Amino acid sequence: MSSDRSAMIILANQRGSSARTAGDTATDDDGHAMHALASRLYPICRSLTGAGVRETLALLSEQVPLDVHEVPTGTQVFDWEIPREWRIRDAYVQDATGRRVIDFGQSNLHVVNYSRPVRARLRWRELDEHLHSLADAPDRVPYRTSYYNDTWGFCLAHRQRLALAAQGDEDEYEVVIDADLVAGSLSYGEVFLPGESNDEVLYSCHVCHPSLANDNLSGMVVATWLARWLMDRPRRLSHRFLFVPATIGALTWLCRNQSRLGQVKHGLVLTLLGAGERLTYKRSRRGDAEIDTAVSHVLRQGGRPHRLLDFEPFGYDERQYCSPGVNLPVGCLMRHLPGEYPEYHTSADDLQLIRPEILADSLAACRSIVEVLEANRNYVSLCPCGEPQLGRRGLYRAIGGESGRADLERAVLWLLNLADGRHSLLDVAERAQLRFDLLARAAELLLERQLIRRQEDGLLRPSSHC
Amino acid sequence: MSSDRSAMIILANQRGSSARTAGDTATDDDGHAMHALASRLYPICRSLTGAGVRETLALLSEQVPLDVHEVPTGTQVFDWEIPREWRIRDAYVQDATGRRVIDFGQSNLHVVNYSRPVRARLRWRELDEHLHSLADAPDRVPYRTSYYNDTWGFCLAHRQRLALAAQGDEDEYEVVIDADLVAGSLSYGEVFLPGESNDEVLYSCHVCHPSLANDNLSGMVVATWLARWLMDRPRRLSHRFLFVPATIGALTWLCRNQSRLGQVKHGLVLTLLGAGERLTYKRSRRGDAEIDTAVSHVLRQGGRPHRLLDFEPFGYDERQYCSPGVNLPVGCLMRHLPGEYPEYHTSADDLQLIRPEILADSLAACRSIVEVLEANRNYVSLCPCGEPQLGRRGLYRAIGGESGRADLERAVLWLLNLADGRHSLLDVAERAQLRFDLLARAAELLLERQLIRRQEDGLLRPSSHC
Amino acid sequence: MSSDRSAMIILANQRGSSARTAGDTATDDDGHAMHALASRLYPICRSLTGAGVRETLALLSEQVPLDVHEVPTGTQVFDWEIPREWRIRDAYVQDATGRRVIDFGQSNLHVVNYSRPVRARLRWRELDEHLHSLADAPDRVPYRTSYYNDTWGFCLAHRQRLALAAQGDEDEYEVVIDADLVAGSLSYGEVFLPGESNDEVLYSCHVCHPSLANDNLSGMVVATWLARWLMDRPRRLSHRFLFVPATIGALTWLCRNQSRLGQVKHGLVLTLLGAGERLTYKRSRRGDAEIDTAVSHVLRQGGRPHRLLDFEPFGYDERQYCSPGVNLPVGCLMRHLPGEYPEYHTSADDLQLIRPEILADSLAACRSIVEVLEANRNYVSLCPCGEPQLGRRGLYRAIGGESGRADLERAVLWLLNLADGRHSLLDVAERAQLRFDLLARAAELLLERQLIRRQEDGLLRPSSHC
Repeated sequence: MSSDRSAMIILANQRGSSARTAGDTATDDDGHAMHALASRLYPICRSLTGAGVRETLALLSEQVPLDVHEVPTGTQVFDWEIPREWRIRDAYVQDATGRRVIDFGQSNLHVVNYSRPVRARLRWRELDEHLHSLADAPDRVPYRTSYYNDTWGFCLAHRQRLALAAQGDEDEYEVVIDADLVAGSLSYGEVFLPGESNDEVLYSCHVCHPSLANDNLSGMVVATWLARWLMDRPRRLSHRFLFVPATIGALTWLCRNQSRLGQVKHGLVLTLLGAGERLTYKRSRRGDAEIDTAVSHVLRQGGRPHRLLDFEPFGYDERQYCSPGVNLPVGCLMRHLPGEYPEYHTSADDLQLIRPEILADSLAACRSIVEVLEANRNYVSLCPCGEPQLGRRGLYRAIGGESGRADLERAVLWLLNLADGRHSLLDVAERAQLRFDLLARAAELLLERQLIRRQEDGLLRPSSHC
Repeated sequence: MSSDRSAMIILANQRGSSARTAGDTATDDDGHAMHALASRLYPICRSLTGAGVRETLALLSEQVPLDVHEVPTGTQVFDWEIPREWRIRDAYVQDATGRRVIDFGQSNLHVVNYSRPVRARLRWRELDEHLHSLADAPDRVPYRTSYYNDTWGFCLAHRQRLALAAQGDEDEYEVVIDADLVAGSLSYGEVFLPGESNDEVLYSCHVCHPSLANDNLSGMVVATWLARWLMDRPRRLSHRFLFVPATIGALTWLCRNQSRLGQVKHGLVLTLLGAGERLTYKRSRRGDAEIDTAVSHVLRQGGRPHRLLDFEPFGYDERQYCSPGVNLPVGCLMRHLPGEYPEYHTSADDLQLIRPEILADSLAACRSIVEVLEANRNYVSLCPCGEPQLGRRGLYRAIGGESGRADLERAVLWLLNLADGRHSLLDVAERAQLRFDLLARAAELLLERQLIRRQEDGLLRPSSHC
Repeated sequence: MSSDRSAMIILANQRGSSARTAGDTATDDDGHAMHALASRLYPICRSLTGAGVRETLALLSEQVPLDVHEVPTGTQVFDWEIPREWRIRDAYVQDATGRRVIDFGQSNLHVVNYSRPVRARLRWRELDEHLHSLADAPDRVPYRTSYYNDTWGFCLAHRQRLALAAQGDEDEYEVVIDADLVAGSLSYGEVFLPGESNDEVLYSCHVCHPSLANDNLSGMVVATWLARWLMDRPRRLSHRFLFVPATIGALTWLCRNQSRLGQVKHGLVLTLLGAGERLTYKRSRRGDAEIDTAVSHVLRQGGRPHRLLDFEPFGYDERQYCSPGVNLPVGCLMRHLPGEYPEYHTSADDLQLIRPEILADSLAACRSIVEVLEANRNYVSLCPCGEPQLGRRGLYRAIGGESGRADLERAVLWLLNLADGRHSLLDVAERAQLRFDLLARAAELLLERQLIRRQEDGLLRPSSHC
């Protein structure tokens, strides 16, 4: 009883406030550790396939028990085929004086990702057809790919391109992309944390972008730290983390795990989590899945600035998880939308753009969402006709008429009222407009006193319905 | 035809206005008579059990055919047990000079209701631990109970408490609560007015508060006058009025009438109906029951200021009627919410607070709700393919093209259009945004002309569906 | 591929704009031709039955393949009976000097339509009881009917009536209505344009008003021109145009075609389409029928000012098509509502009131609605697990990362995502907030590439669901 009372006192002042749960906080240490890992991952030249992804997965496996899968080039994956591996060693454009005016060694963004090998001497106007730059952001190097088109190119700052163009077309440039496109395999990583139940939560982030920090290192490090946190916790649900090359990696996992898809009860694509004040959640294609309600509840009750958006078939790998023949309940947690922030897909999406405290806030929100999914169950009242007498069980204020009703008491009454097996704890929290953790605490108290049972536990003692 | 015409003229100017039905008015006489009854009930010291409730029920039975039920102490009622009877004779605090500084004889609010007996001499600081007062309303005596806690106490004005405290702790006080808590019975009253149908409307008000006028005398007198009005009317539905001690009384009735609960088609808890400008309706747990629509229709169409609130498991006995194993379609009609008006649960909730004209307005609203419930049925068109020819039946304006279409004609056309057996008269009124009584009149006219039938009457003659 | 590209370029700038489809335009020629036809129809004295309707149908049959049906007087039609034919030859009021002060020869509005024959000499006050005029529009002659009342009357400008009244009651007037009410038949016209499917669209307009232009010539000419346009097009659906006397004509068609009603999948009553800036759509009784969505989509996406109204059982023949035993998905497309414009049912509803460009705009909207109904189907993805690889099929931008995503590409992705057989093209357009014609174009592209199939075509090749 005294412990209940103290719980009531602790919680009494929190209604309407934006207090967060224990899980919904992440320390500065977490933020800095995630940023440090991002810093180690940043220089690696990732692509759809090849050494960059493997090196990336190796670094992640220092933090979490990561299984690496290799799928050979040419394997059919639904409508697609596993592409060749891109092995790049060097790439540059050298002017007549022997100076490297564009150099892969300085930034892996300088080469159009997945370019075919080239060795040629070209005049400026010939070379210029293969250059990409941003006229309206003249100091940034754009990020370009050519995954399913057989071509090559270089990316550079527009200011530099104009300077080179001013030199005229007299000289020839030596153009070298020292790369191979060869049969090999596609690599992806998977962390599986089993729980009491086979029902699982799927987390997915892409690992195929080279030196870009927010898109995609932020998703990778938040997913990794979320997995680390879950490793140490008792788990009702199983949790599966996928570290996959965009599109083809998600398709590959789906194709190889078709018999398992029924177990995926909730899912989140994690991306763009290192910059931007507010969190953004894009709902699953279903729109009213439990994950959709859970995330909106956490964002709203946590008092965070946030946005909720309906599904649309553009964006990240939710496109694949929400394709019509798959239709998993997978949403996408971001801060910005792709293309919404000016540094998107340019050299300015770097380690300065992503901030430790923002990464920590994203991690905290993820933890809070997981707490809801883990604790969300349906309960059945064992005393459904009229209210049970809470007073003699220490669940009700002692002197009738005193003002001030603790929110935990409200949560207890709401849960009892809706414990008909048709309402989950999250449903109750939403209808009562109370925080989920209060309902979870109420459920604990009522379970201890045998006033409710978990629906899946079946009937412990006959409940006397009228 | 001439009678229809005159009906059209009478009703023609009422659309959009807030005209009320015949039942939705109550005379000043009603208001004063209800207030007079409240004045007789006011001095009685009611509690959960005991003589106060019995005396109260005896006074009510002068007005309506009331059956009084007695349920012995110790009887199990779902999760609860009928408590002992509280028999109080006298209670006071007397100072060293022999003066009664707190005296139950002056107001029954001075004793914490259901206090255990006490006879003691106490110093001020010992006594003070058992006193209750309101620092922010220093002239009012609070109302306190201790039903399920074995304790005792006195209530007094905070100003008086401060004055006593100023006298210091030198003197001793003689403290007497001359009461018994003994085996006896719980009493409740029931008025049953049978109708053509076994389907019934349940009205419930609590009868356990001592000298408090709005909470709970107002509910008792409005319920009594509503029953008196219904006694003289033909009734399609049966109507049952419960006068019960809060919580335990409602639970007791539910427990003893479990086999009858399926007949309860609508219900209202009536309380706090004597003060406050606007009516407040708290929906049933179901939220979309017929009673919920009926009350909102009456409040809106009657042009009254009002509030509609969703169910929550706090408040009055709707908590019990809407518990998950019972889940009756019972809402709560009030004016203020409990705790919302400053006089709530204090000595200022007295006979000056409740006003005859407010009681009369509450009664009028209740009558109007009953009129809707009584007349609400589903109809089936006997001429469903195309419109019937209204002109030759005197239901349509004679010269085509004349402006001014009577609302009754609109009601006739709407009812014919929606007389498919799936729409109740109230559904039609809501969709057509017309007053219910217009639809009820339209139904009478169409029944007379055999253009519709009551759905429950089955098929009188084959209706020619296309 | 190049054709796709050009399609993308053409369509790229249209998102959010109010661009209209090819069908959703009508030339000035159309407007003037419709107005010219209205001018020929204007002088005819139409009524529920008789020569006026027959002459009208004869003129329409010069434009479209019209079947004329004759149904004998006395035939039972649901609750009604086909009335006698009204054959009017002449009608006038002649003063003592032999001057015709009211003359049917000048305007057929001067006689109350369907008046019984009269030959009498009357004093002013006797005559005045049979006169109709408009005090608040003193220069206009009102339109009045007396279809189901055995009476007679004349209509005139209020100013003239006052002038006549000023002459006093000395003189007698010779009053003549040279007409017969005799057994004959009711006439209505029907244009049936068969399509690939038996599913049909019903269009209905009334043809019983005499010299009134907006009410009802505008509906007749727009319906006729819509039928002309449809005659030259391939048609998936069948289309049926009804030209019927109001109420009794619609009832007659319904009664004679009961076995066919199941084939009517969509319908529109067309009326009041020649004046007024904005289009008005009154939904079917169902409220959420495909026609309701199609019209609201066209009006919204076409960028037109417009109004959407819920069904109510007043207005035109939608009353009959939406009676409860019929309940067809028939809405009503208008500009004004009846009675909403000051010229309604007066001599001012003339050929100056209706304008060629307004008729053309109404026709354009109708065409656009038909285009939606014709192209609206459900599709099933043949590549439902993950997205198909659009790049190698020329459906995706070549270089990843380039900005600017064509709306056609968006339409392609949305359609693939919702091609689960449960979403029609219109559903996809509404959810994606894209124009229907973009979705229709996307469907063509995806059909060509065998990425989707029409749901009704069954399984062409096994679709590999996960």
